[in-house]
Amino acid sequence: MESKISRGIIKKAMEMWLDNLEVDVAIVGAGPSGLTCARYLAKEGLKVVVLERHLFFGGGTWGGGMGFPYITVEEEAKHLLEEVGVKLEKVDDLYVADSVEVPAKLATAAIDSGAKILTGIVVEDLILKNEEVRGVVINTYAIEKAGLHVDPLAIESKVVVDATGHDAYVTNILVKKNKVNLKVEGERSMWAERGEKELLKYTKEIYPNFFVCGMAANAVHGGYRMGAIFGGMYLSGKLCAEKILKKLK
Amino acid sequence: MESKISRGIIKKAMEMWLDNLEVDVAIVGAGPSGLTCARYLAKEGLKVVVLERHLFFGGGTWGGGMGFPYITVEEEAKHLLEEVGVKLEKVDDLYVADSVEVPAKLATAAIDSGAKILTGIVVEDLILKNEEVRGVVINTYAIEKAGLHVDPLAIESKVVVDATGHDAYVTNILVKKNKVNLKVEGERSMWAERGEKELLKYTKEIYPNFFVCGMAANAVHGGYRMGAIFGGMYLSGKLCAEKILKKLK
Amino acid sequence: MESKISRGIIKKAMEMWLDNLEVDVAIVGAGPSGLTCARYLAKEGLKVVVLERHLFFGGGTWGGGMGFPYITVEEEAKHLLEEVGVKLEKVDDLYVADSVEVPAKLATAAIDSGAKILTGIVVEDLILKNEEVRGVVINTYAIEKAGLHVDPLAIESKVVVDATGHDAYVTNILVKKNKVNLKVEGERSMWAERGEKELLKYTKEIYPNFFVCGMAANAVHGGYRMGAIFGGMYLSGKLCAEKILKKLK
Amino acid sequence: MESKISRGIIKKAMEMWLDNLEVDVAIVGAGPSGLTCARYLAKEGLKVVVLERHLFFGGGTWGGGMGFPYITVEEEAKHLLEEVGVKLEKVDDLYVADSVEVPAKLATAAIDSGAKILTGIVVEDLILKNEEVRGVVINTYAIEKAGLHVDPLAIESKVVVDATGHDAYVTNILVKKNKVNLKVEGERSMWAERGEKELLKYTKEIYPNFFVCGMAANAVHGGYRMGAIFGGMYLSGKLCAEKILKKLK
Amino acid sequence: MESKISRGIIKKAMEMWLDNLEVDVAIVGAGPSGLTCARYLAKEGLKVVVLERHLFFGGGTWGGGMGFPYITVEEEAKHLLEEVGVKLEKVDDLYVADSVEVPAKLATAAIDSGAKILTGIVVEDLILKNEEVRGVVINTYAIEKAGLHVDPLAIESKVVVDATGHDAYVTNILVKKNKVNLKVEGERSMWAERGEKELLKYTKEIYPNFFVCGMAANAVHGGYRMGAIFGGMYLSGKLCAEKILKKLK
Amino acid sequence: MESKISRGIIKKAMEMWLDNLEVDVAIVGAGPSGLTCARYLAKEGLKVVVLERHLFFGGGTWGGGMGFPYITVEEEAKHLLEEVGVKLEKVDDLYVADSVEVPAKLATAAIDSGAKILTGIVVEDLILKNEEVRGVVINTYAIEKAGLHVDPLAIESKVVVDATGHDAYVTNILVKKNKVNLKVEGERSMWAERGEKELLKYTKEIYPNFFVCGMAANAVHGGYRMGAIFGGMYLSGKLCAEKILKKLK
Amino acid sequence: MESKISRGIIKKAMEMWLDNLEVDVAIVGAGPSGLTCARYLAKEGLKVVVLERHLFFGGGTWGGGMGFPYITVEEEAKHLLEEVGVKLEKVDDLYVADSVEVPAKLATAAIDSGAKILTGIVVEDLILKNEEVRGVVINTYAIEKAGLHVDPLAIESKVVVDATGHDAYVTNILVKKNKVNLKVEGERSMWAERGEKELLKYTKEIYPNFFVCGMAANAVHGGYRMGAIFGGMYLSGKLCAEKILKKLK
Amino acid sequence: MESKISRGIIKKAMEMWLDNLEVDVAIVGAGPSGLTCARYLAKEGLKVVVLERHLFFGGGTWGGGMGFPYITVEEEAKHLLEEVGVKLEKVDDLYVADSVEVPAKLATAAIDSGAKILTGIVVEDLILKNEEVRGVVINTYAIEKAGLHVDPLAIESKVVVDATGHDAYVTNILVKKNKVNLKVEGERSMWAERGEKELLKYTKEIYPNFFVCGMAANAVHGGYRMGAIFGGMYLSGKLCAEKILKKLK
Repeated sequence: MESKISRGIIKKAMEMWLDNLEVDVAIVGAGPSGLTCARYLAKEGLKVVVLERHLFFGGGTWGGGMGFPYITVEEEAKHLLEEVGVKLEKVDDLYVADSVEVPAKLATAAIDSGAKILTGIVVEDLILKNEEVRGVVINTYAIEKAGLHVDPLAIESKVVVDATGHDAYVTNILVKKNKVNLKVEGERSMWAERGEKELLKYTKEIYPNFFVCGMAANAVHGGYRMGAIFGGMYLSGKLCAEKILKKLK
Repeated sequence: MESKISRGIIKKAMEMWLDNLEVDVAIVGAGPSGLTCARYLAKEGLKVVVLERHLFFGGGTWGGGMGFPYITVEEEAKHLLEEVGVKLEKVDDLYVADSVEVPAKLATAAIDSGAKILTGIVVEDLILKNEEVRGVVINTYAIEKAGLHVDPLAIESKVVVDATGHDAYVTNILVKKNKVNLKVEGERSMWAERGEKELLKYTKEIYPNFFVCGMAANAVHGGYRMGAIFGGMYLSGKLCAEKILKKLK
Repeated sequence: MESKISRGIIKKAMEMWLDNLEVDVAIVGAGPSGLTCARYLAKEGLKVVVLERHLFFGGGTWGGGMGFPYITVEEEAKHLLEEVGVKLEKVDDLYVADSVEVPAKLATAAIDSGAKILTGIVVEDLILKNEEVRGVVINTYAIEKAGLHVDPLAIESKVVVDATGHDAYVTNILVKKNKVNLKVEGERSMWAERGEKELLKYTKEIYPNFFVCGMAANAVHGGYRMGAIFGGMYLSGKLCAEKILKKLK
Repeated sequence: MESKISRGIIKKAMEMWLDNLEVDVAIVGAGPSGLTCARYLAKEGLKVVVLERHLFFGGGTWGGGMGFPYITVEEEAKHLLEEVGVKLEKVDDLYVADSVEVPAKLATAAIDSGAKILTGIVVEDLILKNEEVRGVVINTYAIEKAGLHVDPLAIESKVVVDATGHDAYVTNILVKKNKVNLKVEGERSMWAERGEKELLKYTKEIYPNFFVCGMAANAVHGGYRMGAIFGGMYLSGKLCAEKILKKLK
Repeated sequence: MESKISRGIIKKAMEMWLDNLEVDVAIVGAGPSGLTCARYLAKEGLKVVVLERHLFFGGGTWGGGMGFPYITVEEEAKHLLEEVGVKLEKVDDLYVADSVEVPAKLATAAIDSGAKILTGIVVEDLILKNEEVRGVVINTYAIEKAGLHVDPLAIESKVVVDATGHDAYVTNILVKKNKVNLKVEGERSMWAERGEKELLKYTKEIYPNFFVCGMAANAVHGGYRMGAIFGGMYLSGKLCAEKILKKLK
Repeated sequence: MESKISRGIIKKAMEMWLDNLEVDVAIVGAGPSGLTCARYLAKEGLKVVVLERHLFFGGGTWGGGMGFPYITVEEEAKHLLEEVGVKLEKVDDLYVADSVEVPAKLATAAIDSGAKILTGIVVEDLILKNEEVRGVVINTYAIEKAGLHVDPLAIESKVVVDATGHDAYVTNILVKKNKVNLKVEGERSMWAERGEKELLKYTKEIYPNFFVCGMAANAVHGGYRMGAIFGGMYLSGKLCAEKILKKLK
Repeated sequence: MESKISRGIIKKAMEMWLDNLEVDVAIVGAGPSGLTCARYLAKEGLKVVVLERHLFFGGGTWGGGMGFPYITVEEEAKHLLEEVGVKLEKVDDLYVADSVEVPAKLATAAIDSGAKILTGIVVEDLILKNEEVRGVVINTYAIEKAGLHVDPLAIESKVVVDATGHDAYVTNILVKKNKVNLKVEGERSMWAERGEKELLKYTKEIYPNFFVCGMAANAVHGGYRMGAIFGGMYLSGKLCAEKILKKLK
Repeated sequence: MESKISRGIIKKAMEMWLDNLEVDVAIVGAGPSGLTCARYLAKEGLKVVVLERHLFFGGGTWGGGMGFPYITVEEEAKHLLEEVGVKLEKVDDLYVADSVEVPAKLATAAIDSGAKILTGIVVEDLILKNEEVRGVVINTYAIEKAGLHVDPLAIESKVVVDATGHDAYVTNILVKKNKVNLKVEGERSMWAERGEKELLKYTKEIYPNFFVCGMAANAVHGGYRMGAIFGGMYLSGKLCAEKILKKLK
């Protein structure tokens, strides 16, 4: 029976890999904005793969604020959590949610919409042809963390989304390796209201076939950071999906 | 607005903490068996808290088998995944599931049943009075990982469940610190069919108010390991819940 | 009783946190200048919180000079130690004090004046609105040291003081993240007399609502370092308090 | 002036060292019980040196309970904190104190009573002659932490106190290196009331000229742990002082 | 083309994995004895897989003796290197070979004989049924080195060979996890002639379907170590193959 | 016999070292391009030494693509693997090879052509006289990895080849230490076809007596990366050999 | 000229190695007792090699006592330092010496007597035949510290001396690997006078051809430790030499 | 007696420290050039202190060339080793010396000339007044390596010599902290003959009261490196002494 278990797993994994080497959208980062973006794209029937470095999804949500296991959203964004079934409680004029329930339900909803979430996969580079992004270069997190020298594989996609948060990890790779005419400004200090607003302004295609959303958008454009308020993140994820749908149709 | 965000989070966190210092059941470990056990207990109206060392739930499920992102279950156990909405595919006579979808949906279901999952919390000891377990001694994972010397707090509970997997972490603490008449045998090598069966036999109260389930049960009793087949884990979690319900009623 | 201990501690902590989310002055660093500054501010009735990365106060005083457990002060500054009850002994024309007694008594005096010292709290950023500092962004030292990815909280304050020593840690954040028109020069080599004098000259508001004192002041302005003579540090802390009081009244 | 600063510090350090090579009591550990013990011994005129591994005193008090910066004491012990000026607040039938104020004031009081606290000093062994403890073997924490191979020095004392907490560090050295007829049982799991009581029973001379107090006493005798309630610690420190005074007079 | 490269590699890997889940012999360790054993077994038509923790084969041969890049063999064993094309030079009555050429050619010959060498694969446990070894439990070296908590897969085999060298890694797992009636003695100090001879005596089936060869054989039986003379290793590998062939036919 | 083993090894090593202090070509890096280059040079009778940091040859080939143990080559390059006896299998229009067989056979062929491969040797600098490269400065990998401060030795050679892959390690040393008029551009993102072609264009003498081949060539000139397709690497190694032969004859 | 430097060094090193593969006495550890022992043995014409793990000689002398750079010797032993030219100063009834001068001059004298000191060489095992020690198994410190898996070489000798200090490193290997009828007791706590005396009693041949001297002698026999007084060490080194001379003549 | 040992060591250490707080020359680095410089200066009656980071002297000499324990000198410099009693052997036209004997005898000679060598002392900064170097700022290596935050002490001196080798550690501090008009070029690649010659040209006072010698001189001026030939180092040390003597007289 032991080899049967191995066989079942390997067979299904291989089919999945062969089925996902060419996709519509590759989203890098399974945090709040990436999962929301994936949900809206998959709902519209696009082939979406979410690539997450860690073995688990959720990004910076788990620890809530400074380890107190809750996060907040403002009025305008609360429907994006309610849609996936998260319970909210009003404190002053903010809505507070459980920092463990949120990632569980954002991921569940994205999966049920048809997005494929691959965890433990690092995007270490991009495919770039004729000044256009054409996919992602991937490796396993295990190989990266173990410090082994092993070549990557690649996934071709029509669009790539950088949803890697504060580091704008993928945008940095694009900029540093290819001398493109882009600059990663780095996020500014904290100003919650303004940061929330800028986020939407900065969510867009910044290079042919390459979008930024969530904190990566603010980091690229030098926007203010917000702290443990996540409404802008979900709105940014949704907005990003809308812009991609428009482009691909 | 920044202090309002802080206020909302701290207020809710404090209420939650004060509300969870005395519970019916404290489950240690938010892996496959712990989450299943929590779901069945909370569904029956018990006050259940799940304490997980890492910031995320899911235990050893995420990486599937050797990094191929799928797991297997056998016929008898597949309803326990179907109940929470996980899609299964038959390969030979086993059922294969996505290793990211599974933890998302087991956690979502446990939360919706009313269980409270606290991640980033380490159970570093037990409360033990008159040769009875009476609760858990907790600290944050951040403090543990940072190597800081900081005193713990404690949660009183009627029952404690060790669902920490191969290490049987909590049982080991119980045994090593208190010279109780118990021995942690350590799991044996792999024999999938037999391991799956033993698991149910070994899921039980092994010390007053103290239960073991999942791989911790096999580790305590010297059962065989199973590898990437998880049916026994879910069945064990459910069985453990049933035994606790019987005891507490 | 175990849950009662937890309850007492959590309740008191919650009240304290909710009570300190909006303060007059947030001092970063509980070393010689920060503690002195806090003492003089709190004595005048301001609401003062001191935020210290390490679990303990005292900064670089503990080890004395090269591990010999004593420090020195000159004539002009000795009253600032005598006020808090530190015993001094004259050697040549300097005064020598016990490097363990000094932090104990500076902290005791600051606390008795009404300042709140929070240890184990890292200031990882500032609140910055309309080119004015408006508070601090905080996290726990445990989370930072453990390398966990957890969002911060924030404290709003009328004034922030950088008393973080040689690194001028907070000023560096202000400058690097926001491209303000300020430069952290870095301290120069050692020249004790001159460094002591420059320190007072450089203790001031260097950005709207943002003050530097102690070695951070010299580090920002490129002043000389002094070594194990601390008179200038205490004088700088006091001077900083006087300038803040003037501003806030 | 730079060499004058060096001279003042080195001269004072030399006198201090030469003056402390033969003492009445060497207390290992500047935590709650060690500082209390030192205060009561020094008040009676004994020559007392407290040797603390870390550069700072306070032991495990700083982080309060699980990082919430407060600790508790019960009615019977609250006078021991009030004596040194710590403010207490009643919650239920416990008294809550600020976890930063407590070490500051316990140390201040010990120093003002005449005890010498040396931080950054590791006790790596004992002097042992004719089956009697006769002093401590010391090195610097810097040398230990740096992993350098450097010989220690020694301080002769009439009595040595192990106040090193859960590890009972010095007792373990005594037992492991000399095959004496003693066993370090290790503390048991948590039972706050009983642990508090056992602590006093176990505070005593366990080998000629060698006392244990605080959690080290419970660790040696297999007593229960208490968590973030510190009354027993202060009482144990005081009791230990009383037993030593009786012996030495 | 990028996705084609990925496709070619994944497809071939899948076929290979599915083809190697049930084999005749699983050899653990691609050092001198394991590679020799594999060569002789595969030559006879058995299905053989060699599993090596590191990404490369060769074991301890690469560095020669103390970093001088040569190894020695004695007269009786030199044909085993000559057969694979290694050049030898006589010094006194020993034969010296290049420590880089040796692993290259032993591996080349094993591969050409039909053995499959899988590097970067850790054998973390055995399949054990009814007191018989029935295969190996495997994971990737990347996962192990990265410290990730990921479940293994398994390969079923008729025979398992422990050729892991001094540590007798697999035998230790067998013994420690299953309380079988075997003891790993650990190799003794150096005695080259005698060690070489004992090696052959100790190369055998020590548990149903489980063989040891190379230094693992000496380590299990408490034989003497030999140093940088490798003749016994090759002879042991060959002898092990002969004993397995006899058993399986 | 033990000292005889030592004697045989040391004697042979001494002769080898003394024989290799002056060579025709020193190739840095025993990966795909370095081994191919060495094979073609040695076949023509040149004295060639290959210096490899790790104890083993093979570079980044071992792990295949993302840990799937296969690599690909295109039609034009497949003869370079077939020449050394590697088995290839066609998938679509690419040829797939076993990632363990490839390094074994490339090394075997290079050795049989007469090239000397020295593993565990780090090239930490160059010999540079009158603006010409004249050899390499070497140390052991053990010394480098252990962080010991030990002086290097040197090998004089007519030509040095940088075949160190993505890092272009030796070219970087040349440029950083000597302010020569060269720039290491760093490789660009992935574009497999174009990268393969650029590789040959960039394989050349870039400084008197100093050649680059393999990925180092692309890294120096800012070419595109290719991923797990290796044809260009072998062709580059061969082309480099041809250019050197032309220069030296 | 660069290859000439390499040639000169390699040639001389190889001659030295070939000349030292068979010696009279191999002393492990170049600390106070090992260097003294070597000096007295070489003076009598024996072929002596001293093998020291670190790159430098001197053992634990360099840091003096707790970093104060002086050591002490008593009256009876002072001639052993005076003989090698160390300046001594009397304080009370002890003699104080500079902790840097001492190793410099002990080594100089040993070298001038004809002993060969090899630093950076680890003794990782012994040669052991027919229950007699017959030499040492060596590797480089660089290889050990780098954690590389490289085979050792060996030196045959008539006698081996364990002068490795507190750890009795070589004796432990002898005992642990070969189950000989010896026990390493471990040194006891500090008692300077008694330790000094026991040292001479315990300096002897404890196994055929195997001697212990210096702190290793006390560690093996459970003697008391002495701290920063070194007279016994030099006397032990000399006594050990005398006993070896007697045996070998 | 234990406290007597402590007393003797502390008393002597304190006298030494008080006696060395004002010196003529502070040499940083006890390698080949620093020790030679110290010997020549002390012979002329100057008060010289050598400050060495590591606990031992000798710098990069110990490991010889690539771990082969020998170094070389050329004809012109051999008298500088012969003067201190080092045995030399001619190979081709170079002289080869034992890499352990050399540091032992250079240090012995420096000490006997009256220089004070302090090991385990880090120079972390300079005293700098009115654009003149006036001494060194020191700490212990233990404190630095342990990463403790402890203030330094200082030694005033008329001249400071940077003899720290390739890093030109002290010159870098001078340049980086004080924006003086100096640049540390960094050494170039290897060219032994030319490097040896440049060394003497670059040995000089490069800032008021601040000299460079040995490899630090080449590093500052961008000279070529030499490898394991040390003649230039000794000549540089001597030349530096001559230039200082001229300046101070």
